[in-house]
Amino acid sequence: MEPVILNGHDLKLEELYDVACRGRRVAIAEECFDRLAEGRRIMTGLAKDGKAIYGFNRGVGWNKDRRMEESALVSYNKRLIRSHCLGVDPWHADHQVRAMMCIRLNQMLIGAACATDELAEMFEAFLNHGLTPHVPSRGSMGDDDIATLSHIGMAFIGEADVSWNGKVMNAAEAMEACGIPPYVMDQKDAHTIILSNAQGEALAAELVWEAEKLLSLSQLVYCLDYEGLNGNVEQMSEAVNRLRGLPGQMEAAAECRKFLAGSYLYAPDKDRALQDPLSFRDGFCVAGAVKDALQFVKRFLAIQLNSTSDNPCILLEEKETSVTANFESPTLAAGVEMLAGTLAVLSKTIVFRMLKMTDPSFTHLTRYLAPWDDAGFGYATIMNTYANLDAENRHLAQPSSMDFYQLEGGIEDRGTNLPMAAEKALRIIDNLRYLVGIEALYAAQAVDLRKQKLGELQLGHYTEKAYQTIRKVIPFLHEDRNMHAEIRAAYELIISDELTALLPQQA
Amino acid sequence: MEPVILNGHDLKLEELYDVACRGRRVAIAEECFDRLAEGRRIMTGLAKDGKAIYGFNRGVGWNKDRRMEESALVSYNKRLIRSHCLGVDPWHADHQVRAMMCIRLNQMLIGAACATDELAEMFEAFLNHGLTPHVPSRGSMGDDDIATLSHIGMAFIGEADVSWNGKVMNAAEAMEACGIPPYVMDQKDAHTIILSNAQGEALAAELVWEAEKLLSLSQLVYCLDYEGLNGNVEQMSEAVNRLRGLPGQMEAAAECRKFLAGSYLYAPDKDRALQDPLSFRDGFCVAGAVKDALQFVKRFLAIQLNSTSDNPCILLEEKETSVTANFESPTLAAGVEMLAGTLAVLSKTIVFRMLKMTDPSFTHLTRYLAPWDDAGFGYATIMNTYANLDAENRHLAQPSSMDFYQLEGGIEDRGTNLPMAAEKALRIIDNLRYLVGIEALYAAQAVDLRKQKLGELQLGHYTEKAYQTIRKVIPFLHEDRNMHAEIRAAYELIISDELTALLPQQA
Amino acid sequence: MEPVILNGHDLKLEELYDVACRGRRVAIAEECFDRLAEGRRIMTGLAKDGKAIYGFNRGVGWNKDRRMEESALVSYNKRLIRSHCLGVDPWHADHQVRAMMCIRLNQMLIGAACATDELAEMFEAFLNHGLTPHVPSRGSMGDDDIATLSHIGMAFIGEADVSWNGKVMNAAEAMEACGIPPYVMDQKDAHTIILSNAQGEALAAELVWEAEKLLSLSQLVYCLDYEGLNGNVEQMSEAVNRLRGLPGQMEAAAECRKFLAGSYLYAPDKDRALQDPLSFRDGFCVAGAVKDALQFVKRFLAIQLNSTSDNPCILLEEKETSVTANFESPTLAAGVEMLAGTLAVLSKTIVFRMLKMTDPSFTHLTRYLAPWDDAGFGYATIMNTYANLDAENRHLAQPSSMDFYQLEGGIEDRGTNLPMAAEKALRIIDNLRYLVGIEALYAAQAVDLRKQKLGELQLGHYTEKAYQTIRKVIPFLHEDRNMHAEIRAAYELIISDELTALLPQQA
Amino acid sequence: MEPVILNGHDLKLEELYDVACRGRRVAIAEECFDRLAEGRRIMTGLAKDGKAIYGFNRGVGWNKDRRMEESALVSYNKRLIRSHCLGVDPWHADHQVRAMMCIRLNQMLIGAACATDELAEMFEAFLNHGLTPHVPSRGSMGDDDIATLSHIGMAFIGEADVSWNGKVMNAAEAMEACGIPPYVMDQKDAHTIILSNAQGEALAAELVWEAEKLLSLSQLVYCLDYEGLNGNVEQMSEAVNRLRGLPGQMEAAAECRKFLAGSYLYAPDKDRALQDPLSFRDGFCVAGAVKDALQFVKRFLAIQLNSTSDNPCILLEEKETSVTANFESPTLAAGVEMLAGTLAVLSKTIVFRMLKMTDPSFTHLTRYLAPWDDAGFGYATIMNTYANLDAENRHLAQPSSMDFYQLEGGIEDRGTNLPMAAEKALRIIDNLRYLVGIEALYAAQAVDLRKQKLGELQLGHYTEKAYQTIRKVIPFLHEDRNMHAEIRAAYELIISDELTALLPQQA
Repeated sequence: MEPVILNGHDLKLEELYDVACRGRRVAIAEECFDRLAEGRRIMTGLAKDGKAIYGFNRGVGWNKDRRMEESALVSYNKRLIRSHCLGVDPWHADHQVRAMMCIRLNQMLIGAACATDELAEMFEAFLNHGLTPHVPSRGSMGDDDIATLSHIGMAFIGEADVSWNGKVMNAAEAMEACGIPPYVMDQKDAHTIILSNAQGEALAAELVWEAEKLLSLSQLVYCLDYEGLNGNVEQMSEAVNRLRGLPGQMEAAAECRKFLAGSYLYAPDKDRALQDPLSFRDGFCVAGAVKDALQFVKRFLAIQLNSTSDNPCILLEEKETSVTANFESPTLAAGVEMLAGTLAVLSKTIVFRMLKMTDPSFTHLTRYLAPWDDAGFGYATIMNTYANLDAENRHLAQPSSMDFYQLEGGIEDRGTNLPMAAEKALRIIDNLRYLVGIEALYAAQAVDLRKQKLGELQLGHYTEKAYQTIRKVIPFLHEDRNMHAEIRAAYELIISDELTALLPQQA
Repeated sequence: MEPVILNGHDLKLEELYDVACRGRRVAIAEECFDRLAEGRRIMTGLAKDGKAIYGFNRGVGWNKDRRMEESALVSYNKRLIRSHCLGVDPWHADHQVRAMMCIRLNQMLIGAACATDELAEMFEAFLNHGLTPHVPSRGSMGDDDIATLSHIGMAFIGEADVSWNGKVMNAAEAMEACGIPPYVMDQKDAHTIILSNAQGEALAAELVWEAEKLLSLSQLVYCLDYEGLNGNVEQMSEAVNRLRGLPGQMEAAAECRKFLAGSYLYAPDKDRALQDPLSFRDGFCVAGAVKDALQFVKRFLAIQLNSTSDNPCILLEEKETSVTANFESPTLAAGVEMLAGTLAVLSKTIVFRMLKMTDPSFTHLTRYLAPWDDAGFGYATIMNTYANLDAENRHLAQPSSMDFYQLEGGIEDRGTNLPMAAEKALRIIDNLRYLVGIEALYAAQAVDLRKQKLGELQLGHYTEKAYQTIRKVIPFLHEDRNMHAEIRAAYELIISDELTALLPQQA
Repeated sequence: MEPVILNGHDLKLEELYDVACRGRRVAIAEECFDRLAEGRRIMTGLAKDGKAIYGFNRGVGWNKDRRMEESALVSYNKRLIRSHCLGVDPWHADHQVRAMMCIRLNQMLIGAACATDELAEMFEAFLNHGLTPHVPSRGSMGDDDIATLSHIGMAFIGEADVSWNGKVMNAAEAMEACGIPPYVMDQKDAHTIILSNAQGEALAAELVWEAEKLLSLSQLVYCLDYEGLNGNVEQMSEAVNRLRGLPGQMEAAAECRKFLAGSYLYAPDKDRALQDPLSFRDGFCVAGAVKDALQFVKRFLAIQLNSTSDNPCILLEEKETSVTANFESPTLAAGVEMLAGTLAVLSKTIVFRMLKMTDPSFTHLTRYLAPWDDAGFGYATIMNTYANLDAENRHLAQPSSMDFYQLEGGIEDRGTNLPMAAEKALRIIDNLRYLVGIEALYAAQAVDLRKQKLGELQLGHYTEKAYQTIRKVIPFLHEDRNMHAEIRAAYELIISDELTALLPQQA
Repeated sequence: MEPVILNGHDLKLEELYDVACRGRRVAIAEECFDRLAEGRRIMTGLAKDGKAIYGFNRGVGWNKDRRMEESALVSYNKRLIRSHCLGVDPWHADHQVRAMMCIRLNQMLIGAACATDELAEMFEAFLNHGLTPHVPSRGSMGDDDIATLSHIGMAFIGEADVSWNGKVMNAAEAMEACGIPPYVMDQKDAHTIILSNAQGEALAAELVWEAEKLLSLSQLVYCLDYEGLNGNVEQMSEAVNRLRGLPGQMEAAAECRKFLAGSYLYAPDKDRALQDPLSFRDGFCVAGAVKDALQFVKRFLAIQLNSTSDNPCILLEEKETSVTANFESPTLAAGVEMLAGTLAVLSKTIVFRMLKMTDPSFTHLTRYLAPWDDAGFGYATIMNTYANLDAENRHLAQPSSMDFYQLEGGIEDRGTNLPMAAEKALRIIDNLRYLVGIEALYAAQAVDLRKQKLGELQLGHYTEKAYQTIRKVIPFLHEDRNMHAEIRAAYELIISDELTALLPQQA
């Protein structure tokens, strides 16, 4: 892969994914260095002329009224980064930290941060050498993730550990092995490293891509489950959904039609119910709401990936510096929490769908999808586990973005808890992997039982492949077996590439 | 005012406001009657040809498999509307029910519902004669507000009370006085009345217009409060916010600049802090998040006001009927809950701002904004009340859209709780009226104390008028007085038109 | 009724109920006046000797470091009560305010508050003349309900309204009519009026008595419903529950056995299920958990009704005054929230029980308890309404006792939100009245249908009377009718005395 | 240590701790085997006489109407245990599983479960050989932890992994090494293994002992922090708290007096504030509420540890079997959630206390407890991290005990989510370890700064030792250093035995 060229304005979510998860390299666009130089010239000039600039020739937080001397800047930077190195366990995964570094680097290239060239190049070098600082996942209130991003600075100066080539080692050692001297922070460097929401944004980005993948798999499994039910899919037609005009719902319906193209569900069957339970009939509408929420999050995330959160900021055109509030991201936090809410709705919808599948009065199959009537427990007991996961999802869907405090002498009295919001949503996603996996068990079992009843079934274009893939891993339940292992196998299938590979490419 | 012409596709929120709150009349666009007739022709034709149609020649809910005879339709309609007449207290305000009727009428004019002309004309007549059915506010799960909209049908057939000319009376009597005979429901009429989310949509519409009004007042008071603080507003400049690019934030900053145009805050003052507490500095960003959430809600609400939720629906072009899931509105419910979340964030931000205003270390004014030092309690005690209201707002911001059930034999296993979501958000709005009112007390007091200190102050173009309007109602606090009465006066000011009249017209 | 003699140590919940709700008079025990005098002697003596005493010769809150002169006390008291007169709508009901006055009076008789005899006598006079101040229900954070109890003081000095003889009028006028001169507050009087949790405690007391009444009715209706089901009640036996040993559960089982004594359920029936759904089988266990939570609340409430929350307090034996933290009640607040949680569990259990009753596979009766098969909607549609009320209950069960703030310059940084906690729980109770009422509809209908099937049924000793009482108000559902009216009638039955009168007297 | 003798009635929490965490052995009391034999005789006799017994000669769940043949019992048991082997990651820690086994064993010795002697001896053998099955922590709804306890059965029959001597290995292998043949389940064995709340009870037990330990440490650190503040502790006196009479508060005050005995705080100091912020003044009251909640949980937990949850159960005296609902534990679940709520209140109180310690207007020390004025960041930045942990605690304090479902054909429509409730509370505890650790940093730093100011300070008897212990690990903050490492060190101190060892022995 070619490196992603970063210029502060055009970073795409897909590129971020590549850098974070697939090791893609980055390169700083040439023009950026002029911008950085111009920015520094403006800020240092103004400071020299006596302008008081927060975090540059004045302290931060409650100390914002205290002057700093230029001669003390190197030591100030070191003290700042050490004292802001906070947070608690667990550590972030490497791909999450790579996303943070990529985001922060891109944002500083806008030229508003008074970053040195050397600092930008450190980020680039770390990304391209695969040097990944250890960053704790908890401890930031989210109006700038100063508590956590500081760990990146600690690695730059060699005072922390990094992952490198699959090993954990001291940053200074690893840098030496890569030919990178320990960094000496000067000017506003420490400030620049930490004054960003890159942690929350990286997690929000991961949430987006994981939610999109999970949602597609969920739709695929839903369609297969529909075939297990022998349900009525008339309400998914284009004409019907156009009448309503809700964007996510229309898109979700189209996706289902694609997955089900060619299915026996489109052939008339006098035994088919006129209408199915809403968890089936409206399933794609719920998926549509997740899509609508995702679009909202993606829109605001894209803006934040390519804009500055720095305070103060440099206005290149105006040749000025200014106090800002650009580190605020209440909309993104609210969007992430809305997305979590829609995922919890999806979760319960899946649970209710599965409960229907165990009930012969809806399926006209065996009770609990047992191999035959009176043949053991079938998929009965598993209800306990998916219901419990749904109860946890309901809990995780409760917002925390209004739980901020009056910190630093009351001055820092805002916060979004964006990282926490994203972490909670990611945990819902992980629980959903189990739920979608279990629905896949149900769907495949129901399809098999349906075949016993109706003879060979023509499944949809995509659902047939999904069915085959599931059955490769999990055979027909013909007797009681270890359900924990079965749940685990289903989960592994969902996180594997095998089902995902079946999906049509996203635009 | 000219009547609003309804055609199923173009109803604007502003028009709905006029119909609901200002008694504006409605008129059904001529072309709609052709559409209705064509729809009925299609559905009855298909039914005659033997097609099973839910709610038409088949029962509803768990009874969906039961046949109905055409001869029994009148009695069936009556039984249906009576048995669906549910819900519990309190009754909705008249303007809310008018909004519901206007929405439901507009939706049925699309021609997808198999509505009779007479039914559409009943809605029109009720709206235009000012006949307003009593509709209970609680008891709907929100996937179609069948439990509550049914009360409109009960009024049509004369079996319930209505408000008319300021009196509550039996519907039949009131209709007679207006020359309207009691309605005889036939065909799918009862079904058509109730299969809509018009209750939830009407409440969401009210939420939008009340939130917009409240937010503008909050911004105005925030700006006046900023003048009371003698704070730094550099971060509100266009250039700084353009760098960030967040739409709500940019709009909110522009609004503040307009309100503060001409203010002494734009003149340099060496005693002004370099940066203010975030509740001040970032206040407009929080307002921006509310705006972003409002845009989301408005977008989806506009779609729903002008589309069909009917099931089954008639496809005019295809000359078909179809099962649908178009009564789903999970995105709108999620949006309303997101909006509630951002309002709770605004609430706490206002509280934290007010706490700063009581603290001389931020204001360099008296403790608690007392008239002079050692001069009594000032605005200290009032903290208890606004903190308690904020705690309630935090509670109200918790979502319920995932709390649905398996009803009607498990078939009706979806619901959005949209009406409840909107009611909770409206209650946050009402609590915010107190908070914004109290911030107005603080702001005016601080401005007066600031004037004592600095001499006459040049306030902003809009904030000066706001100050004058507040002081017309509430004088300078020069001694301890009944704070309950003062809070009440501030609240009345917020709901009055006096402050609102100062605001620039919304686009 | 004899007046309740108050002495600061022996106030019972039942006596409080009589004073609050049944107009019972109070009398101050003679010995208390000695205690009050001794207390005042101690505090004034110490103050004269130069001891700094908060709220007496020093200010309150952030002003606690400011001295006050004795000569200024009358004016100080007036300013204090006015400035602490806060809160927002709605007003409390009269019986709630009577409870507050009775509690506060009793607490001050302990002698720790430095109350004047005259102040105690004002409380007594107001209670005995039926003069009831208007007190707002919202606006207190709950570590002392200063924001709301102050309104009682405002009435004492004639600066607020009272209810008297069913009318609302100015306090001074009403007092004059009763021959009571306006009160002149002196010494620590204003302080004494407000430094109490009497608002939260009064609401907690109401919660206890309403929850106990509701729970008993719920148990009675549950037993009748069980008879409608023809279920198995073996698990309610004394021997079985003694094996478990959980106190609330044992008590609830005994109550059910009493209600069902003589029932046909104790006769063998080969068609009866071996075990019923858990919402039936375990219903009394859920009621038992409510009882356990109630015991907890009652224990701590009883302590608080008869102890002092004053700060500073007078130690009569030690002849000292002391700073205290005795105004804290986090345990009571936590208990009220736990009780709310168990009520929400009860709520959902009732909902699930009702869903079973609509299902012929459990009841072997008609679908939805319709009068006969294919006979209309029966009790189907009503599900929407009770499910929605349960969703609201789930919301209301979320705690707020951790949502406190840093007020008054950061000094007042605790609060329990006890009044809000109790109000939320009371609203759950009110919603439960609907649910229990609707279960009564179901139960009576099922009993009638069961009789159609099995012939005359021998109901339990108490359940037979309950059945008769229900049927007096609501006839057998033999055709579709206005369900809203039916729900209302059921609710009225629950709040009436008719069903309650059937219950055995509580110990 | 002597083995704990188990007889079904006398298991103490302390003994359970020893078995779970300290490897203590267990022994079955001799008399129990007679009881077991008698129980089996009763149940098999009744079954032979034709009585239908759930789970014995009838199926479970929805299959409860299906007959089972005695000849099929061995295979039935195997199928049952496999199909109920559910749940998802992560695995429980070994000590948690040991607690589950000890609890379940004790409960079955009551003789109500129809357990075989061999089954009881398997539990005993596993505990005494240190064989610990792997049990997943999530997936049980809590009305019997069938989904998770089943894994113990899987290990017994050799079909799962166990921990043994620090290694993970196949159960059959490990058993062979211990000389234990794989178990053959017969009769009701599988049923007996899983029909218990032992998972939830084990977690509740851990919660109790961890909460008690943490709370004592918190009290100790609070007292030291009070010395750092030079605050007024008058309100902790016995006389003052006796006046109030709240049990937890009185106990907490006594504990503080013990910790502070001999402290300079008891010597007069004219510079000491008259009253301190409530987070200090009322801190022990908040701890008292945690104690009250703990007592409630302990009371109900003790009952459950020594009683039967079996269904059906055997009534030895009555020589009968009976359907039961004894597997219900809604009170314990509600108590655990109440405890979580009080812990969240404690959490915020600690946060507010720490914020005061950074503020010179309260401490008269340096800003942020920096080594000297203008000396860097001090303990400022760390606020972000503890505020974020508190926000998470607030989230975790929200209840889930009302989130249960209608499973198994609607029959299993109850659940307490007890294991989830306990897990959430345990996570609050873990977050509190950080908060208490950070308060220890603050306290020690403030004490050192106070000494700089006042000269040598006489600390309390216990607080002096605490101070020394903290300073052994964490030196005075004399310059900015890595705060993440410092937080970690403080956390390690809290979980270590060093501070705990200072505490007086609990009764």
